[in-house]
Amino acid sequence: MSKSALEIAKAARAAFEASQLLTSEQRTNALLAVRDELERQKDAVLEANRRDMSAAEELVAAGKLSASLVKRLDLSSTEKWNSMLQGVSDVAKLADPTNKVTYATKLDDGLELYRVTCPIGVLLIIFEARPEVVVNIASLAIKSGNAAILKGGKESTESAKVLANCIRTALASSSVPEDYIQVVQTREEISELLEQDKYIDLVIPRGSNALVSHIQHSTRIPVMGHADGLCTVYLDASADSAKACRVAVDSKTNYPAACNSAEILVVHKDILESVWPRVADALVKAGVELRCDEPSLTSIKPSQDSDLIKPSISTDYDTEFLNLTMAVKAVASFDEAVAFINTHSSHHTDAIVTESQELARRFCRSVDSAGTFVNASTRFADGLRYGFGTEVGISTGRTHARGPVGLEGLVIYKYVLMSGGQDGHVVGEFGTGGRAYQHSPLAPSLPY
Amino acid sequence: MSKSALEIAKAARAAFEASQLLTSEQRTNALLAVRDELERQKDAVLEANRRDMSAAEELVAAGKLSASLVKRLDLSSTEKWNSMLQGVSDVAKLADPTNKVTYATKLDDGLELYRVTCPIGVLLIIFEARPEVVVNIASLAIKSGNAAILKGGKESTESAKVLANCIRTALASSSVPEDYIQVVQTREEISELLEQDKYIDLVIPRGSNALVSHIQHSTRIPVMGHADGLCTVYLDASADSAKACRVAVDSKTNYPAACNSAEILVVHKDILESVWPRVADALVKAGVELRCDEPSLTSIKPSQDSDLIKPSISTDYDTEFLNLTMAVKAVASFDEAVAFINTHSSHHTDAIVTESQELARRFCRSVDSAGTFVNASTRFADGLRYGFGTEVGISTGRTHARGPVGLEGLVIYKYVLMSGGQDGHVVGEFGTGGRAYQHSPLAPSLPY
Repeated sequence: MSKSALEIAKAARAAFEASQLLTSEQRTNALLAVRDELERQKDAVLEANRRDMSAAEELVAAGKLSASLVKRLDLSSTEKWNSMLQGVSDVAKLADPTNKVTYATKLDDGLELYRVTCPIGVLLIIFEARPEVVVNIASLAIKSGNAAILKGGKESTESAKVLANCIRTALASSSVPEDYIQVVQTREEISELLEQDKYIDLVIPRGSNALVSHIQHSTRIPVMGHADGLCTVYLDASADSAKACRVAVDSKTNYPAACNSAEILVVHKDILESVWPRVADALVKAGVELRCDEPSLTSIKPSQDSDLIKPSISTDYDTEFLNLTMAVKAVASFDEAVAFINTHSSHHTDAIVTESQELARRFCRSVDSAGTFVNASTRFADGLRYGFGTEVGISTGRTHARGPVGLEGLVIYKYVLMSGGQDGHVVGEFGTGGRAYQHSPLAPSLPY
Repeated sequence: MSKSALEIAKAARAAFEASQLLTSEQRTNALLAVRDELERQKDAVLEANRRDMSAAEELVAAGKLSASLVKRLDLSSTEKWNSMLQGVSDVAKLADPTNKVTYATKLDDGLELYRVTCPIGVLLIIFEARPEVVVNIASLAIKSGNAAILKGGKESTESAKVLANCIRTALASSSVPEDYIQVVQTREEISELLEQDKYIDLVIPRGSNALVSHIQHSTRIPVMGHADGLCTVYLDASADSAKACRVAVDSKTNYPAACNSAEILVVHKDILESVWPRVADALVKAGVELRCDEPSLTSIKPSQDSDLIKPSISTDYDTEFLNLTMAVKAVASFDEAVAFINTHSSHHTDAIVTESQELARRFCRSVDSAGTFVNASTRFADGLRYGFGTEVGISTGRTHARGPVGLEGLVIYKYVLMSGGQDGHVVGEFGTGGRAYQHSPLAPSLPY
């Protein structure tokens, strides 16, 4: 049973290669089989989950684990269980992201080139506590035609093992190879897997910044994820007061622990005495601690006498608080705001509140982030809200995929060149004195 | 003048950020200014080039450098000079790859989401001898809106310096910041630049496999390139004899030093006595040394008595010969051929010769390479032949870009969310008991 990391990586690659001729329907059927098997094995899963929970509760009692982690571990509520199963059905229903023709051109009579989307290959997904992520990620991998190796947090070991067994049992009865989904348990295995760049094509860490950052530093395999979620809201001189309050409060307080929550509020100096005090009031009423630079502090201190208003220190503008704390910075101009954001934000999502269409456009072009928003909360930066049907993760990288990533982030493409000519096609007959390339567009029909 | 690697990286990032509001026309005009300045400075460039040439010729005389390198250095032929300038004009004329809307959806009344292509940021391009690559790559960077740091081979130092000065002089008179294009000279600078993942977004090594492989092992920044070009041609049982000869000979001999040349020929056992001897004859006549496994050797040895036919050793099937040598492998079945190719090819480009449409399709789906070709030479794998107008490089990676990469490989995208509502938009009003996301498609018009 206990394979080496190399064997696991090779088995994943072999499963991927063996799956190339599967149809979309076969992969969808495999997903439905997974759902059925999970339903069938509900008792076994919940029993394993209870073992994880007891072990975790002991650690909590000993002060070695936070109580919130136990809550994330728990699969026993009907709502959580059903939503896990519903997730499988939802992914099954999504459009297949593979076999889309994105470029088609005729190079010569009888010589046709097609660019066709296809899976990336083998994914290594590393996540933390929540065991249902096994099912979620396995569904996305099967749907998109990628093999996956999964590693969950050690607290969810028992649950993850049984969930993975359900998935593999279901796959064994389907057309998708069983080794499409493999689960590993230990950190040592992960270190060794991160070396297998010959067999593994993409690493997706889902979890804390510390985890993502550690992975990014430990492998040559491309990593898709975000190490920081340092989002800003900029209140322009032209900001509408009501919109400013709503957007700032929602961006900060709707779910402070999320990566798309705002950590910094940038305020134009012209509204320090008008809009800003109202926004500060709304934030304080929502329980937000404001860490203000001197101008933004001075303009609210006389009217506001809350313990929640404090002077900022310079590191506040580079801190992902993930709680009800917000750093406030006054700027002398729109351009200073943009420069400040480009320096301090993590290029995840930044919003402007403005009534100027011209400045809205300039902001969206000039701020170099995955999301640039106008009069809307940074919290909208999310795959489901964007309409992708699912979210693989959020990427602050600048290659492959950026921002919230749906199933499209799990595919790449290949070029298929078909000669239907009498003699086959050779390059030596083209060029000076020979044939010319036609490069005339073709209908994007699938060549296979 | 001598900036540290960190200062260079920061200057590139600042230039990139300062360029966000430039129009397509302004970038095109900058390119035309570059061309003009190069024409104006032709004498100075050629003089610098002569200094590089003399130094290189001395090294050749001392046996320390190959003569072919001197040829690659030389800019003085009218053809080479003109083609360098024409390259700038050609890139100027290409379609702007930025500001294309690739997804647009209405989330709510007055809340519109757009995905818009945009430059990646700062590119680090490392290349070897040919000095005109400075001009070529600078053109691609300016056209696509990316800042670039360039490092050429030390043999072309003088030429590269003067070419870079021309480009920067031209930029200084244009709307594009001068620091958009910077040239560094030493290996030490490169090592330090490869550490600057905060400021540099993509490394593109153009040159030998050794160079690419070294870079891939030396940085956390994403690398776009190909470390190997191990392409195969598979002659199926159904192969047409004439097509087999043409495709095999062109794939091997059209330009043996190129990464898209074939190194391995895979032959189905059923044609070892029929098609294969003719193909072997054609290859030998073209001067190709054949390294054959036992079955493929046995079937041609009686009729062919050439010194060019030899038994193979196992490493021949993992070697990028880059010359007129080809490893030959007989297989018992189509499936064995596919498995062999997936194991031994570098996933660059692989071709099948077959008269079976069904096997052609299966080959293209099952072979897990950037290019899968039917009855066509592997040498077609090239950005210009594919119709991209230019080639940034060829990628054997499986994320971001795969295969020949045109200007599209130098862009990513950002999400722009625009609220035109009365009150701005907040997430807290959506979800259970609140508003539902509409996700209705919008016309893909540019939001800024």
